[in-house]
Order: sequence, then C-alpha cells, then structure tokens
Amino acid sequence: MAIFNLDPRLENDCEWVCDLELCKVMLLKDANYPWLILVPLVNDCVEIIDLDKGQQQQLWHESSIVSRVLQQLFKPDKLNIAAIGNVVAQLHVHHIVRYSSDLCWPKPVWGQHPAKAYETEQLVQRVSLIAHSLTQLTKESK
Amino acid sequence: MAIFNLDPRLENDCEWVCDLELCKVMLLKDANYPWLILVPLVNDCVEIIDLDKGQQQQLWHESSIVSRVLQQLFKPDKLNIAAIGNVVAQLHVHHIVRYSSDLCWPKPVWGQHPAKAYETEQLVQRVSLIAHSLTQLTKESK
Repeated sequence: MAIFNLDPRLENDCEWVCDLELCKVMLLKDANYPWLILVPLVNDCVEIIDLDKGQQQQLWHESSIVSRVLQQLFKPDKLNIAAIGNVVAQLHVHHIVRYSSDLCWPKPVWGQHPAKAYETEQLVQRVSLIAHSLTQLTKESK
Repeated sequence: MAIFNLDPRLENDCEWVCDLELCKVMLLKDANYPWLILVPLVNDCVEIIDLDKGQQQQLWHESSIVSRVLQQLFKPDKLNIAAIGNVVAQLHVHHIVRYSSDLCWPKPVWGQHPAKAYETEQLVQRVSLIAHSLTQLTKESK
C-alpha cells in the first residue's frame, strides 16, 4: 500500500483527530469555530469526482457522521460544508460549526479573520471529545 | 405530493436549468463564473443530514453529474462545491467553476464582488448547453 502524503499546510494547521475508513479527520487549529476537515486517504486526489464511486459514497457517509457529531456536541445554528481547494489542492472537505453570534456570521469563514490559537488543554479536550463521539457513531452506523 | 417551495432569493437570483430526480438545477445569474446550484426538491430541508440516507446518496450522485458536466464544458482549474446556507437556509449546494485567472482567485467567491449580469443571449445559450449536457450524462449514468 502506498504511503499517504498529507499536504504540509493541512498538517501544520490542523490537529489529527482520528482516521475513519476512508478519511483522516483533522481539527483546524482555529478556536473561533469548531472546524473539522475530512481528508480522503487517497493520493493525488483534487476533486471529489477524482474518487471512484464507492469512495465518493464513503466520503459522504463519513461526512454525515461528522455532521451528526458536530450537531450533537456543538448545536450549531448552521453547518457549513465545503470542498474549495483553491490554495491547498489536496482534496479536503470542511465541516464548520457556525453560530449567528460568531465572528463573521453570516459570511463564509475563509479569509475573514486570522485563526485564534487554542489553549493547549482546550485543544486536547476538544480533540478527545470529538474522537470519542466519532468512534461511537461510526460503530453504531455499521 | 406537496408543492415544493423554492426560496424567493434563489428564484430571483437564478435561472432554472432542469430538474433531476432529486434536485432542481439552477444557474446563478452571475456571469463572472459558471455557477450551478442544486436544490433538493424536499421542503423544510436545511442541512444535508436533514435528507434521508437515500436522498443524500442521490444528492451526491447528482452533484457528481453536475461536476462532470462543468468539467467537460468549462475545463475549470478547480471546482468549488459547498453547502453554506447562512443567508438562505433552504438546502442548496453550490458548484462553481474557478479559474486561477478569475476575479477573486484564490478566495472563495461569496461576498467578494457584485454579480455581473449576463447578456440575454449568453444566458439562454449557457442554460441550454448545460441542460443538454446534464440530460445526456444523466441518461448515460443510469
């Protein structure tokens, strides 16, 4: 099996949460928003339709699990889900918890405000909480 | 069957292209970008996970068809695919053709520049071209 290469900007900007069947789940280190990124563990993939049909179905299945976990844990006013990739080409899908009270509501978050660093303890707790919930919900949805 | 209610802002800002099995396909009237919006024909739906599992699969199947048509017709440098919905809550999924030469590359397009009106003939031609390609590809992918 080929080694999976994670884009260095994703590696630098995110904290690893867990690996699902297809995707790596990462938390963006921006305490302004609970913000998860799904990165399919498939090299040389840029567009969603670069994945084969089964992988696309698995991506969206995992996206739905991530969305449900974010809803349960953070009670968003809205989820923002997006595959943009104009800067980092490696396929990655944002899942962002938005509140009508957040920093740049109702605008999309990209390029609006600099990331706010997490306190170490807050980061560790959040990653652990999300990883636990994802593992639980993944088991239940088998 | 209940009457489907399209959000008046989507109705106003878009031109109808065609209806697929689950979704209405609309072209955003902004000539800066070839920009399609998929709106599932399901009332009271805000998040993707408000759709049932079969509907979610159908949404992403139709999204992949729309993406392939946009690739074939417009040869984008990147597709941007997103469900945001902070302003218009009704579930709708953007599919935007991006070029590294476009108006706000590499930024996401929302809230950056006012929409540029289409010439009537250009709009009619574009809608017709996309509708034809979508119909063809939908038949082939059955």
